[in-house]
Amino acid sequence: MIDRLIENIQKKNNPSVVGLDPTIAMMPEGLKKKYFEEYGETAEGIAAMFEEFNRNIIDAVADIVPAVKPQIAMYEKFGESGIRAYNRTCRYAAEKGLTVIGDIKRGDISSTAAAYAAHLDGAETGSRREATWWEDSVTVNPYLGTDGIKPFTDACAAAGKGIFVLVRTSNPSSSEIQMLELADGRKVYEAVGELTAEWGSSLIGKFGYSEVGAVVGATHKEEGERLRAALPHTFFLVPGYGAQGGTAEDVAGFFDARGLGAIISSSRGITAAYRKMEGCGEENYADAAAAAAAEMRDTLRAALARRTE
Amino acid sequence: MIDRLIENIQKKNNPSVVGLDPTIAMMPEGLKKKYFEEYGETAEGIAAMFEEFNRNIIDAVADIVPAVKPQIAMYEKFGESGIRAYNRTCRYAAEKGLTVIGDIKRGDISSTAAAYAAHLDGAETGSRREATWWEDSVTVNPYLGTDGIKPFTDACAAAGKGIFVLVRTSNPSSSEIQMLELADGRKVYEAVGELTAEWGSSLIGKFGYSEVGAVVGATHKEEGERLRAALPHTFFLVPGYGAQGGTAEDVAGFFDARGLGAIISSSRGITAAYRKMEGCGEENYADAAAAAAAEMRDTLRAALARRTE
Repeated sequence: MIDRLIENIQKKNNPSVVGLDPTIAMMPEGLKKKYFEEYGETAEGIAAMFEEFNRNIIDAVADIVPAVKPQIAMYEKFGESGIRAYNRTCRYAAEKGLTVIGDIKRGDISSTAAAYAAHLDGAETGSRREATWWEDSVTVNPYLGTDGIKPFTDACAAAGKGIFVLVRTSNPSSSEIQMLELADGRKVYEAVGELTAEWGSSLIGKFGYSEVGAVVGATHKEEGERLRAALPHTFFLVPGYGAQGGTAEDVAGFFDARGLGAIISSSRGITAAYRKMEGCGEENYADAAAAAAAEMRDTLRAALARRTE
Repeated sequence: MIDRLIENIQKKNNPSVVGLDPTIAMMPEGLKKKYFEEYGETAEGIAAMFEEFNRNIIDAVADIVPAVKPQIAMYEKFGESGIRAYNRTCRYAAEKGLTVIGDIKRGDISSTAAAYAAHLDGAETGSRREATWWEDSVTVNPYLGTDGIKPFTDACAAAGKGIFVLVRTSNPSSSEIQMLELADGRKVYEAVGELTAEWGSSLIGKFGYSEVGAVVGATHKEEGERLRAALPHTFFLVPGYGAQGGTAEDVAGFFDARGLGAIISSSRGITAAYRKMEGCGEENYADAAAAAAAEMRDTLRAALARRTE
């Protein structure tokens, strides 16, 4: 995954990823009318609506961004129908050549983690193996330690896939556990960062980055820069840009000297851009997303260029 | 959830829960033959097979145990079909009067956690609300802190449901993060335990236990006993009994003086019991599960009785 992701980033000269986190509130009125008329106000109809919305967003941004990051919770909320929409969204994006980062934040003990690893390398179904999910990479939670991570790294090695371990998340309460100070002077997130580097040490690709990356929030400029220096082989997936408060200047130090090493995520700021653009009819939501994605790309490019001046 | 769970435990005089974690390897040959013939070796067929297996296990143990704990990963592995089997299993168990503890270990930032909370109180679908999942309670991961937990506790309050926060998990690598020593002398798991008690402080039921419980592994006798003393209002969900090494003696100290305060989980030890019982034909897998569940109940009862002698 990591080499293809970086090649995609270089080809589009854009280190950003569009979060596909649909909500009913985000949907254009015309789309809601269409699906509520066909399905009633049902989970099945909402899932089908999300799928159409996502397809149009993906078509609009596919030439601009290297990757998409659907957040499974927004689909899982709607049960089986939602999971189907998630899977179809991932598959559609992959077919368009985008790297698909499934934001699933799974984590469990070894035998259970091995079951979750089907997100990366499919499920044995008797004497054959079946693809049951369509991500190139997924986010995982480290709280259970190495034996909960190893099945994922095994799947990465077997299938050329990747993971991003939660190290320093973007949300306000993230410090409660992640910033606790340890007896040896480190913070909890630093200990988790070091474990993350160990977990990825045998999966380093041609750009010097591992299939095992880290989630580091744009809202934590200082810790992001410290982690960048401490973990030279760990690629960062960076949420918290835009709506959550992180700026291009905040994240510029999350990149290495080559301008690699991080991919910045924005969700609402792209997919709901049509609501904030003056004179933009809601039917043009996909064009608005493309414009917002291009603007974010240019803002990040400029911040990285300023850094090296 | 917590009051109903404790009433169920008292009614059946059994503080144990059966983990419904099906694998292909666990299935009787006759069942595999039936489903592989009908569906081929497909995820859809395996999911349907798991559903039948679970229904028969549930029927067999419903009078013996107060609760079941399906591990969603074992279903999620098989994609959308698997999720359908998980949901139908939860629903079937609930209809039989069992408390359903969904072992989903979800955790994310606030808006995302609110989407996952649909597991407890359903999803808004326009002007109405639809049940999209069927658990009474779910397990959650604490690594993101309070704002990732609050949507779940809000759902607990609104719908009379419960959660169990991962505090000290049963797996071998769990100590890597959970047992790190903090500068103030506590261990990480103790800090998480204290947060868990805070999160549940306004949701305490008639037995003195909160809707917000903790996952504490049977493999950690000492920490379990320390947590029992430190967190008088926190109910423990205890994995790691049996196959993972925890014994009835190990967990006896996880209970309070009344014999309440914990529910001990066993999965393979119950559902795959037919493989270890001499002379037990595989077609009797459900009866074997019932016998194993009764044996576990009696072992736990005896250990608790010895403790008070």
